[in-house]
Amino acid sequence: MTSIDLNADLGEGFGRWRLTDDEQLLSVVTSANVACGFHAGDAVTMRRVCELAAGRGVRIGAQVSYRDLAGFGRRAMDVPPAELAAEVAYQIGALEVFARAAGTRVAYVKPHGALYNRVVHDEEQAGAVVDGVVLADASLPVLGLPGSRLLEVAGKAGLPVVAEAFADRAYTEEGTLVPRGREGAVVSDPEAVVERSVGLARDGAVSTRSGATVAVRARSLCLHGDTPGAVDLARRVRARLEASGVVVEAFA
Amino acid sequence: MTSIDLNADLGEGFGRWRLTDDEQLLSVVTSANVACGFHAGDAVTMRRVCELAAGRGVRIGAQVSYRDLAGFGRRAMDVPPAELAAEVAYQIGALEVFARAAGTRVAYVKPHGALYNRVVHDEEQAGAVVDGVVLADASLPVLGLPGSRLLEVAGKAGLPVVAEAFADRAYTEEGTLVPRGREGAVVSDPEAVVERSVGLARDGAVSTRSGATVAVRARSLCLHGDTPGAVDLARRVRARLEASGVVVEAFA
Amino acid sequence: MTSIDLNADLGEGFGRWRLTDDEQLLSVVTSANVACGFHAGDAVTMRRVCELAAGRGVRIGAQVSYRDLAGFGRRAMDVPPAELAAEVAYQIGALEVFARAAGTRVAYVKPHGALYNRVVHDEEQAGAVVDGVVLADASLPVLGLPGSRLLEVAGKAGLPVVAEAFADRAYTEEGTLVPRGREGAVVSDPEAVVERSVGLARDGAVSTRSGATVAVRARSLCLHGDTPGAVDLARRVRARLEASGVVVEAFA
Amino acid sequence: MTSIDLNADLGEGFGRWRLTDDEQLLSVVTSANVACGFHAGDAVTMRRVCELAAGRGVRIGAQVSYRDLAGFGRRAMDVPPAELAAEVAYQIGALEVFARAAGTRVAYVKPHGALYNRVVHDEEQAGAVVDGVVLADASLPVLGLPGSRLLEVAGKAGLPVVAEAFADRAYTEEGTLVPRGREGAVVSDPEAVVERSVGLARDGAVSTRSGATVAVRARSLCLHGDTPGAVDLARRVRARLEASGVVVEAFA
Repeated sequence: MTSIDLNADLGEGFGRWRLTDDEQLLSVVTSANVACGFHAGDAVTMRRVCELAAGRGVRIGAQVSYRDLAGFGRRAMDVPPAELAAEVAYQIGALEVFARAAGTRVAYVKPHGALYNRVVHDEEQAGAVVDGVVLADASLPVLGLPGSRLLEVAGKAGLPVVAEAFADRAYTEEGTLVPRGREGAVVSDPEAVVERSVGLARDGAVSTRSGATVAVRARSLCLHGDTPGAVDLARRVRARLEASGVVVEAFA
Repeated sequence: MTSIDLNADLGEGFGRWRLTDDEQLLSVVTSANVACGFHAGDAVTMRRVCELAAGRGVRIGAQVSYRDLAGFGRRAMDVPPAELAAEVAYQIGALEVFARAAGTRVAYVKPHGALYNRVVHDEEQAGAVVDGVVLADASLPVLGLPGSRLLEVAGKAGLPVVAEAFADRAYTEEGTLVPRGREGAVVSDPEAVVERSVGLARDGAVSTRSGATVAVRARSLCLHGDTPGAVDLARRVRARLEASGVVVEAFA
Repeated sequence: MTSIDLNADLGEGFGRWRLTDDEQLLSVVTSANVACGFHAGDAVTMRRVCELAAGRGVRIGAQVSYRDLAGFGRRAMDVPPAELAAEVAYQIGALEVFARAAGTRVAYVKPHGALYNRVVHDEEQAGAVVDGVVLADASLPVLGLPGSRLLEVAGKAGLPVVAEAFADRAYTEEGTLVPRGREGAVVSDPEAVVERSVGLARDGAVSTRSGATVAVRARSLCLHGDTPGAVDLARRVRARLEASGVVVEAFA
Repeated sequence: MTSIDLNADLGEGFGRWRLTDDEQLLSVVTSANVACGFHAGDAVTMRRVCELAAGRGVRIGAQVSYRDLAGFGRRAMDVPPAELAAEVAYQIGALEVFARAAGTRVAYVKPHGALYNRVVHDEEQAGAVVDGVVLADASLPVLGLPGSRLLEVAGKAGLPVVAEAFADRAYTEEGTLVPRGREGAVVSDPEAVVERSVGLARDGAVSTRSGATVAVRARSLCLHGDTPGAVDLARRVRARLEASGVVVEAFA
């Protein structure tokens, strides 16, 4: 039986502000990337999302970020490795309190935004993120892009690694993401996203813009939750996966 | 044998800024109230202080605060209880990561600054702090002022409570602190501070300004670390305590 | 001819987060209370709102707040007067840059949230806000609640004062607001709000819950912009005012 | 008569924390780069420094930075140009309020830390800083490194530009700074710094590590104020300049 994990960013409000429809998304995903206060996510929201996730059996992951509320963690920063490692550990620890209080644990770590993109190529920052995870808990899996420095360094450090794919992003013939900003980088047709989800989950493959098929091995699909229609699309993806015989469950 | 704990606020810098002489204070105290990032304390400093404290056998406590870097946690805030509880838990969790990485654990919780003063009388905020501690770890002792709402509520919730005294503060004949701002509220003569420390630790008593002696039961003395001469005074206090037959050790 | 000013809070997003529908509200109000970065309002938003307001002839006011992004400025803080005065001036200065760049000026100051409520009764903080306004520009009008310490202190300091009323709040027979939290404090029926707007603007009077009529002298009505249906209600209020022969224009 | 301006970073504390000895430095320098709240500098400090500077006839400049208190503005950030421009303007406006209240004006702008270094080479961010200055006041001079993109872009935009030199930094034979981190990048011998100051101010030249002399045209010398002995060294530099017939005065 083929199985796939569905992950999404959650708890991305701050104080008075809301962004993600946490309740609805938690009825679809199997893994919740919970914001930990550095790009979004106040303590009340973190607590609530952990309680909701635990109540629905959704796994909780620490979505760690640069310290940048004003930029929502989307601005790359040259953070020295010792600072970045300590800040990653700080965020994991803060979330762990709420996961435990809800009767569960932080089960994985995923970098957010500009940090996610930076550690695809930047070995120093990738190493710092891994150091931070090890500092917090050396048994925590790291979720990221296949082929990224992050997963490579995490694997060398003995951390479990989990590769994810994006059904709403175009892939090159090398199996890497077409960079945002390039024409056609984002797949906006909902039906296409649904079909690509099935291809990625069941066949480990996706079609490129030229019509070729390329292998993309991923144990998790990342769904987006901050756009209009996101929840509906997520539901369609999950329904089609299940209808196609794919088991939707948290990664082992 | 009489014993006493010595606690002090540590790690109260932020980023480029330093305030407390952490290394020197850690050679004197038995309990370190470590700032957790809300009034002071960046992740790098928290990690370093935990490593130093663990290396010297100094116990680590979470010095929790209102979220107020600009005011150093010294401005009382009407934080709704659910927010305050979650923020207290967040801070404890963040520090716990560094305590564990250093081979130890967060061993107690002490509110900082305006929050410390507020929960002497404010039952709602005292309850919120206790809720936050319970959320994080229902076995954690709470350090505070004897007779405070905080210790009362913590005790009712089943948390261990530890009362502390201040050798550099004047006491009323009821055994409470003379409020800051009143004449003579602070004892500035070092020799007097040293003598009062011994009286508090060995005899559980201190003299009032009128010359009477009042009982003050405390298992810990709070030493200040952010003034010139603070470290020297702390050393003198510890030396005199030991010379007087008082065992200086972390509270049981 | 009777005239009335309509003011609303604008620009209350921060970074990635949005709250107020600035474009729509700017088509209704005559005075825009622009958030200045302390409870909400990043620099890009401040610039944009100033440009939009200037383009539509809407007056720009500085909506000054406690420094509290996490609490959206809704948590009262014991800020020492010198700090509060300087922080008020800082916010006015920051907004002035964008008002000038848009070809206009900051035309008034209105405290936000917990600070607004605090300076109704707290003379020390009221004085600090006035000091901050004078520091920035001693000719700036202050917008607030009639009978508040703020308007009293501002008037004594020689600042122009402008009283405002709330069509969606219940009034006591003394002409003061029924405190939030009391039953019936908020008027939720849209038609009632519209009618009360006309009464306040044209007759300087509003009915109390007991059916009596009480005088409320106000040169501005505060409209809320952060609830569903807020913009529609604001439009209805403006239309009804105009249909009733009231001129809707910025206060003189 | 040869003249030179002396500038230093001031007001770089935040809340409870202090860094620069503002009073002493203001007795030496002719231009004060005042922190505006983004890397350091709370409103009370900004006000106080402006009052002190105005009282001593020291010119006030806005030391603008990335929004990064935790990193003291020393971590390069990929801030989109529109955000950076608005944030620069915001900081200038906030400082202007205190300069005016002290009877003077913000007289120039100088980027801080990582932003200073970034705009030496990064044309996009240099342009954004210039846009921010123009937004605030299109007549404000920009202080920076000769040959930097910043001064080039500022000049093209019609802003006055002022080049500065560093007596405590080694120069290459091309007249550029030896990058920090390279051996010998920083000149630590006080007497050498004093001599180099005179050479830079009087002769527009400095010796390289190979013994050659290279021309460095600068109208201002940057003195550092955050190291032990900084104030003494600054005094010696000023005294030697004056003894050498150089007029120490703010740039025209």
